Amino acid sequence: MESKVSRRLTQPTAPEVCTHIYAPRLRDFGAGFGYLTDINAAHLLMLHGTGLIPADTAATLARALVRIGQEGPDAVPLDPQREDAYFNYEARLMAVAGADAGGRLHVARSRNDILATQDRLRARDAVLGLLDTLADTRGVVLRQAVAHADTVMPGYTHLQAAQPITYGFYLAGVAQSMGRDMTRLRHALATLDACPLGAGALAGTAFPIDRAATARWLGFSGYVGNALDAVASRDFAWEILAAVTIATVTWGRVAQDLFVWATPEFGLIDFPDSVAGTSSIMPQKKNPVALEYLKGKGGHLLGLLTASLAALKGTHFTHSGDGSRETMRGFWEAMVEAQRCAEVLRLVLEHATPQPATMLNRARRDFSSATDLADMLVRDAGMSFREAHHVVGAVVREALDRHLPACEIDSTMVTRAALAHTGRTIALDAHVVAACLDPVHGVASRTAAGGPAPALVREQVETQSASLAADREAITAQRGAVAASRAALKQATEALAGAAH
Amino acid sequence: MESKVSRRLTQPTAPEVCTHIYAPRLRDFGAGFGYLTDINAAHLLMLHGTGLIPADTAATLARALVRIGQEGPDAVPLDPQREDAYFNYEARLMAVAGADAGGRLHVARSRNDILATQDRLRARDAVLGLLDTLADTRGVVLRQAVAHADTVMPGYTHLQAAQPITYGFYLAGVAQSMGRDMTRLRHALATLDACPLGAGALAGTAFPIDRAATARWLGFSGYVGNALDAVASRDFAWEILAAVTIATVTWGRVAQDLFVWATPEFGLIDFPDSVAGTSSIMPQKKNPVALEYLKGKGGHLLGLLTASLAALKGTHFTHSGDGSRETMRGFWEAMVEAQRCAEVLRLVLEHATPQPATMLNRARRDFSSATDLADMLVRDAGMSFREAHHVVGAVVREALDRHLPACEIDSTMVTRAALAHTGRTIALDAHVVAACLDPVHGVASRTAAGGPAPALVREQVETQSASLAADREAITAQRGAVAASRAALKQATEALAGAAH
Amino acid sequence: MESKVSRRLTQPTAPEVCTHIYAPRLRDFGAGFGYLTDINAAHLLMLHGTGLIPADTAATLARALVRIGQEGPDAVPLDPQREDAYFNYEARLMAVAGADAGGRLHVARSRNDILATQDRLRARDAVLGLLDTLADTRGVVLRQAVAHADTVMPGYTHLQAAQPITYGFYLAGVAQSMGRDMTRLRHALATLDACPLGAGALAGTAFPIDRAATARWLGFSGYVGNALDAVASRDFAWEILAAVTIATVTWGRVAQDLFVWATPEFGLIDFPDSVAGTSSIMPQKKNPVALEYLKGKGGHLLGLLTASLAALKGTHFTHSGDGSRETMRGFWEAMVEAQRCAEVLRLVLEHATPQPATMLNRARRDFSSATDLADMLVRDAGMSFREAHHVVGAVVREALDRHLPACEIDSTMVTRAALAHTGRTIALDAHVVAACLDPVHGVASRTAAGGPAPALVREQVETQSASLAADREAITAQRGAVAASRAALKQATEALAGAAH
Amino acid sequence: MESKVSRRLTQPTAPEVCTHIYAPRLRDFGAGFGYLTDINAAHLLMLHGTGLIPADTAATLARALVRIGQEGPDAVPLDPQREDAYFNYEARLMAVAGADAGGRLHVARSRNDILATQDRLRARDAVLGLLDTLADTRGVVLRQAVAHADTVMPGYTHLQAAQPITYGFYLAGVAQSMGRDMTRLRHALATLDACPLGAGALAGTAFPIDRAATARWLGFSGYVGNALDAVASRDFAWEILAAVTIATVTWGRVAQDLFVWATPEFGLIDFPDSVAGTSSIMPQKKNPVALEYLKGKGGHLLGLLTASLAALKGTHFTHSGDGSRETMRGFWEAMVEAQRCAEVLRLVLEHATPQPATMLNRARRDFSSATDLADMLVRDAGMSFREAHHVVGAVVREALDRHLPACEIDSTMVTRAALAHTGRTIALDAHVVAACLDPVHGVASRTAAGGPAPALVREQVETQSASLAADREAITAQRGAVAASRAALKQATEALAGAAH
Repeated sequence: MESKVSRRLTQPTAPEVCTHIYAPRLRDFGAGFGYLTDINAAHLLMLHGTGLIPADTAATLARALVRIGQEGPDAVPLDPQREDAYFNYEARLMAVAGADAGGRLHVARSRNDILATQDRLRARDAVLGLLDTLADTRGVVLRQAVAHADTVMPGYTHLQAAQPITYGFYLAGVAQSMGRDMTRLRHALATLDACPLGAGALAGTAFPIDRAATARWLGFSGYVGNALDAVASRDFAWEILAAVTIATVTWGRVAQDLFVWATPEFGLIDFPDSVAGTSSIMPQKKNPVALEYLKGKGGHLLGLLTASLAALKGTHFTHSGDGSRETMRGFWEAMVEAQRCAEVLRLVLEHATPQPATMLNRARRDFSSATDLADMLVRDAGMSFREAHHVVGAVVREALDRHLPACEIDSTMVTRAALAHTGRTIALDAHVVAACLDPVHGVASRTAAGGPAPALVREQVETQSASLAADREAITAQRGAVAASRAALKQATEALAGAAH
Repeated sequence: MESKVSRRLTQPTAPEVCTHIYAPRLRDFGAGFGYLTDINAAHLLMLHGTGLIPADTAATLARALVRIGQEGPDAVPLDPQREDAYFNYEARLMAVAGADAGGRLHVARSRNDILATQDRLRARDAVLGLLDTLADTRGVVLRQAVAHADTVMPGYTHLQAAQPITYGFYLAGVAQSMGRDMTRLRHALATLDACPLGAGALAGTAFPIDRAATARWLGFSGYVGNALDAVASRDFAWEILAAVTIATVTWGRVAQDLFVWATPEFGLIDFPDSVAGTSSIMPQKKNPVALEYLKGKGGHLLGLLTASLAALKGTHFTHSGDGSRETMRGFWEAMVEAQRCAEVLRLVLEHATPQPATMLNRARRDFSSATDLADMLVRDAGMSFREAHHVVGAVVREALDRHLPACEIDSTMVTRAALAHTGRTIALDAHVVAACLDPVHGVASRTAAGGPAPALVREQVETQSASLAADREAITAQRGAVAASRAALKQATEALAGAAH
Repeated sequence: MESKVSRRLTQPTAPEVCTHIYAPRLRDFGAGFGYLTDINAAHLLMLHGTGLIPADTAATLARALVRIGQEGPDAVPLDPQREDAYFNYEARLMAVAGADAGGRLHVARSRNDILATQDRLRARDAVLGLLDTLADTRGVVLRQAVAHADTVMPGYTHLQAAQPITYGFYLAGVAQSMGRDMTRLRHALATLDACPLGAGALAGTAFPIDRAATARWLGFSGYVGNALDAVASRDFAWEILAAVTIATVTWGRVAQDLFVWATPEFGLIDFPDSVAGTSSIMPQKKNPVALEYLKGKGGHLLGLLTASLAALKGTHFTHSGDGSRETMRGFWEAMVEAQRCAEVLRLVLEHATPQPATMLNRARRDFSSATDLADMLVRDAGMSFREAHHVVGAVVREALDRHLPACEIDSTMVTRAALAHTGRTIALDAHVVAACLDPVHGVASRTAAGGPAPALVREQVETQSASLAADREAITAQRGAVAASRAALKQATEALAGAAH
Repeated sequence: MESKVSRRLTQPTAPEVCTHIYAPRLRDFGAGFGYLTDINAAHLLMLHGTGLIPADTAATLARALVRIGQEGPDAVPLDPQREDAYFNYEARLMAVAGADAGGRLHVARSRNDILATQDRLRARDAVLGLLDTLADTRGVVLRQAVAHADTVMPGYTHLQAAQPITYGFYLAGVAQSMGRDMTRLRHALATLDACPLGAGALAGTAFPIDRAATARWLGFSGYVGNALDAVASRDFAWEILAAVTIATVTWGRVAQDLFVWATPEFGLIDFPDSVAGTSSIMPQKKNPVALEYLKGKGGHLLGLLTASLAALKGTHFTHSGDGSRETMRGFWEAMVEAQRCAEVLRLVLEHATPQPATMLNRARRDFSSATDLADMLVRDAGMSFREAHHVVGAVVREALDRHLPACEIDSTMVTRAALAHTGRTIALDAHVVAACLDPVHGVASRTAAGGPAPALVREQVETQSASLAADREAITAQRGAVAASRAALKQATEALAGAAH
């Protein structure tokens, strides 16, 4: 019963509770250890600064924290009977600093505000790390978009050839959506930027603590204004979870495109063997493992988002085991997977090799220029668009019936269909018809804003590159500020540790 | 076959497709009708402005749109064979304006960009409406927080009395979380503020359209930069869905608190009969229907979020039926329910009547002041916090064993426990011990930032009221801008309709 | 206040509660009306049979129920102030039968057990209806499987050609999975086959009712043994929801296959125009709307399952608004959609037209016979399988490098690769190599149990047809029993109505 | 490149693929190792039995398998470059048995059917283990139900006192729902009872294998009839996942009851300290960690179910990385958590100590007997139930206004209310009124089937105990059969290993 903290409870904890509930809480001890040390140091410096703790005790504690920090998480003996990471850390602190000094650090705070603070600190690093990777991936996509701005291919809707585009245009669209992914994550960073420490169990404290000071030491812009909300809420985590789920589901759509385009039947994209898997039985196989990974991860993250929200659903608006711990259980797993996804997406888009000849050939033959033909009839033959749509529909019907590819449609077919469907005789230049059916010409002509004409795509990439650069700058600034506050915290703790010698 | 648009397809649509797929698409025709009219008007004005349509055709179309708008959705005959709302609207337009003029409006656009635009317009109104209601609800919560800033009650963690707070402090915490709900929704408004119109099917257009103009007419700050992304993406909708799911799950936690507090066993809150339900069999029953509604809706919205993300998962990054329609199916239902939840939450928090005598009595008897006692031992008896925690734990143990409420603990019990657990004799003033155990005193003393002391709660409310006022101002400005652009669009369309007479 | 049932509550219900909570409960009044009438009739017959109600009152009530049943749901004035369907029905009953007689039917029961009974009755019909449709769809799939048992095509794993199969073999696999869908639904029918009526609010009743009688009148095999569980539990509904979600996600996979196979790039399947949609802008388009519908619905149903489980999560194990009503909200929507999906799936698989020439050509050229080649090396050249796998891998590598299709691999390439990779010279008959590379031969040779050889597929279809016939018989028997009990109930009620004249 | 299996691929796998995709697949190597050994042994015995492999090779392989099995998973060097568990096992096999023999085992099978078989074998053990625990838990609940069959307490609906029940009746209801949990799991066992081995990659094999033999060695009743379905489908896993999610959500409802009942405010249940947690700051705290764990786990499992279904959604009906691996990722985690939940639930219900005095006192005072009073008016005063409901509602209203508990209602109040609301004077025996208001009498009188009268609860427990005994017997039989087939497999493999010396 050495490990029991409370004198109010008089029995050791049941083995099932230790094994099934407490032990799993300790699995993450290493990942949270540094944040716990930082929180302890910030609290100590504040207690010392406000005179809430004697100077010599403060120095003793500072020395203990420096030593514990240096020895790392593996030096802390973990006992599930102690319930969680915090109590195991405190036990170590009391062993190193002595029971009296060690027992003095937990004044004016609670596990609840510590846990809330730790969750935010750890999430902040995870989001900043993910933003870095995402910036790299988005940079790769933008580079590839420029590189393939002239690579004409069929554009698809409903997986049926729709209108010719370029591979660069496709990638510029993907990159644009990634910009919103980054914006959402940056917004979530702003949401979490307030320090819960000092909120206590839920009701603040009567000790005259300085919450602004602990917030500053931990790199927050300020502290959470209401103590109950500070320990009860984890909506910053759901906001992040939602953002990464949205992102990974979207990336899964891109993977789905490549998954189909990389089949020999489509033949639009090739991948190097380095991103492919084998078969144990079929010697010819080259399986798109990286794409399947990306496709599946949207499901994984959706599950983690669902689990987290469902765990909180039905809890009370305060701190509780289900509301504050279970709801965060899957969060870290989600951040790891999101990071992996962003890296695998970069790998995939860096190495996907478009096959220009096949792409162009398909675009020539697959009727994706039919809209250009209809547009021409509007422009040159004075038809209404709906009329032109009908005429070209009939032309396509005839071509299909005669097994002709789109590039073999000629002006006669069009004038004949026009006569049949509108009763009017129209005069068409054969070259104009041919130009309409040429996907390269079609793409080049789509110069209205947002379109696939190569010059426009380069413009889109430039705009997005500027936005990416701004994002990078902001992220770098935030990382810098976090690092600076951490360095200052470390230095001040060491100074306090030294001063007391 | 009159209703079939395409001349490429040669069979009528199968009845199952009409009944199960197309007919459900038309259920929402009324809700989308106004937006379709606006989109048509904006596109028409742009085509007229750029000279892409003859002046007289433009006037004919303007007159038709004005008339159709005035007659409203019920005047449009709906036929599922026409696939969806757009084609039914177009059919009506051709009936009113004539087939030739009616057929000329669909140049340089597609159902895909129209649908994407309509989704954003409708979502914008829904979010603005929700923000209005949320602002009202938050205002009510803040007013109640001030009104009950002195109403002392037990604060709970794990549904066990933890430390005394006030009902006003609780509400200030709830209101603070609602501030973040509003911020998320406002961020989502920024995400959706770009017009997809002119993106066409996915590949823009060769007609020299003016996308900035249509964006302006429709009240957007600009247009979506890449045409493929414009029609493929609905992440603005998921961002909103995630925000309202997070909000309703959180409100469900508040409902859960009231659900338990309103039992006779707790007796902390009473509700007027107007928000209660009856039993068909048990004459004494007064059932908390409004609270159960709020508790359940987090589940409903989580399901809609899951459905929307899962529907898109595995689709291609482009327009498709599952990716662009199915994924939005539950979105409107979610917005309606979120609106209702915000109204029911306001009703509930406006009418929840705290029972101050019961609250105070419970707080006096339930040991929630034990931490104050421990804090006092740290302050006055020089104990470490962990030591004080042990001593007070033993005092509580003794009180429980003797069936004493907290308010009957006296200084003798404390000094005895201190001697037993620390070996030290401490001197304690009986009045100081009594003050520690008085929850009113305890709450008043918790003056560290964020705490429940009445003055602090008033401060928190003031800060939040200022933030709410700023939110309101911003929302009003956005609503104003949307209304102004809509009025201008209407006026210009009518002018065009008149001009051409 | 006329509509308020309780005299304990003294205020009218707040408008928000009526509009947002009670009114939506009435939307389904028509769908539940018949079941409510049946429940009332069964309860009445039981009260009459046990002498718990005077004979003349019973007759009056029987006449009222017969009349209300004949007039249908539209004759019942609906008022949300009355909370729900039951109270509106009761109000009508009191209007028709008089307040005294009408007020006597609700003895020894509660809305809670009525609602639980109604949910089961309605779900039973929905599941039986779905089973019928599913049986039809499965029958169609089995017919098509036989019809195409010889239609050789490439079999895919990871969307890469794997080994040749037949289209019939594919369909036999799909049909087999549908057998399990039916089994799960039939199991759920067994789970729900117990009558909750008589459980009262949660605690049974002191009136000496005959629960076996009401159960029998309503077509149940018996009654739920514990009254609390009877009103608290809806797990039969989740079991059904899970079964239909599993089914629709699986059908979405089949739709995904056809979605890709129906592209011109794959060209394996064609669809008649009747199941395709058009484009408003692209005249050539023939969009797979039915397939996209099926693909998307797995997401829809997964969302409804999530919503239902999440709504109950955190409720108490008893009757409550969130636990018993909100949790069932999406259930009926799910059953409607599952029914539609089964019909659309039948439509799609009935009309999907395999393209044998293209299928065979792809299978000849796409290396899906490579495993057969490796197997031959094991059989005829004494290699280990892993060795043979390496040799054939090298052969494929060479063919790819030389742009040869699989059907142009010859024995020289194989012996050369064998020498290079195993150091051994092997003798191979050119005809044997050619046979290995012939997919028709390959399919025919795969005669181990479960394989694609045409005779085996016919065998599989026969086995499954027998199982389907057994399923059909069981379903028919259950429908018959339900219909018989309903007819008996109707007859007895009418007799009671007549007898009392 | 030593570790690459395929000679068709010419590059080493990218590090991101190894780290993010392949390495995580190996984390579970230990858990799957025994099943892989069994599958290899069964396949070997079958190859030997059918003469598809030379006797001496068979013996060599048998010896290798015996040795590998004895050395255990830790003796297998794991290299992510080899993609997954299977290839790492095969590499070890080739190291132990020699490349030639080791390379001969993989004839007539594929990783796909091996993986599908392994999933079923491992799931079968997990479900059988869970069923054992569930049976124990249900047994505990039934024992407690009998022990507390006379412990009268208020029954709640909507968390408001409804009608008096007993704690034993409550537990009998819980136990009854657990019976359905077991039935669902047993049904899922039947669903998975068919062996996929021999299905190959998806298309069976041309080698004349004996699938019935491998199925028998592995303890299956038979083999999966269609090879494609065998490798494509994991619906047995979803069926299990759905069953455990339903179960844990239900158990969370029970935990929610105890969570509220264990508050001092309700005071109905007490827990020993061994299942409670402490607070780091509040010395008086005794937190219900085990209950919060149970409440939260429904969310966790719902997330895993969602993840699994969403991962499969949008895949093809065949083997793929997302469809066959990602979809199973969370399954094992779910089974571990379900097992833990069942054990914690047993702990909780074994140790929950009802407080009979408090329970009875609450039931006396809280108006939960009002329905009995109304029933009496129906029986003794000839009122219709609705009339009686109104009269008693008015009585309760008066008692509340006068702050009287239910037990102080007297016959005068009832006759007065009857006069006021019905205009009739009724004569009531004061003792009868008092008896109606006595919850012990009320419970004892509720003798209609399924009700809470103690004798009925004992009956319910007896019925359920019989059903539990039958379940146990069936589970024991299944475990026995599995163990017997495993022993036979081991013996035969060792015999083969020995025979060839």
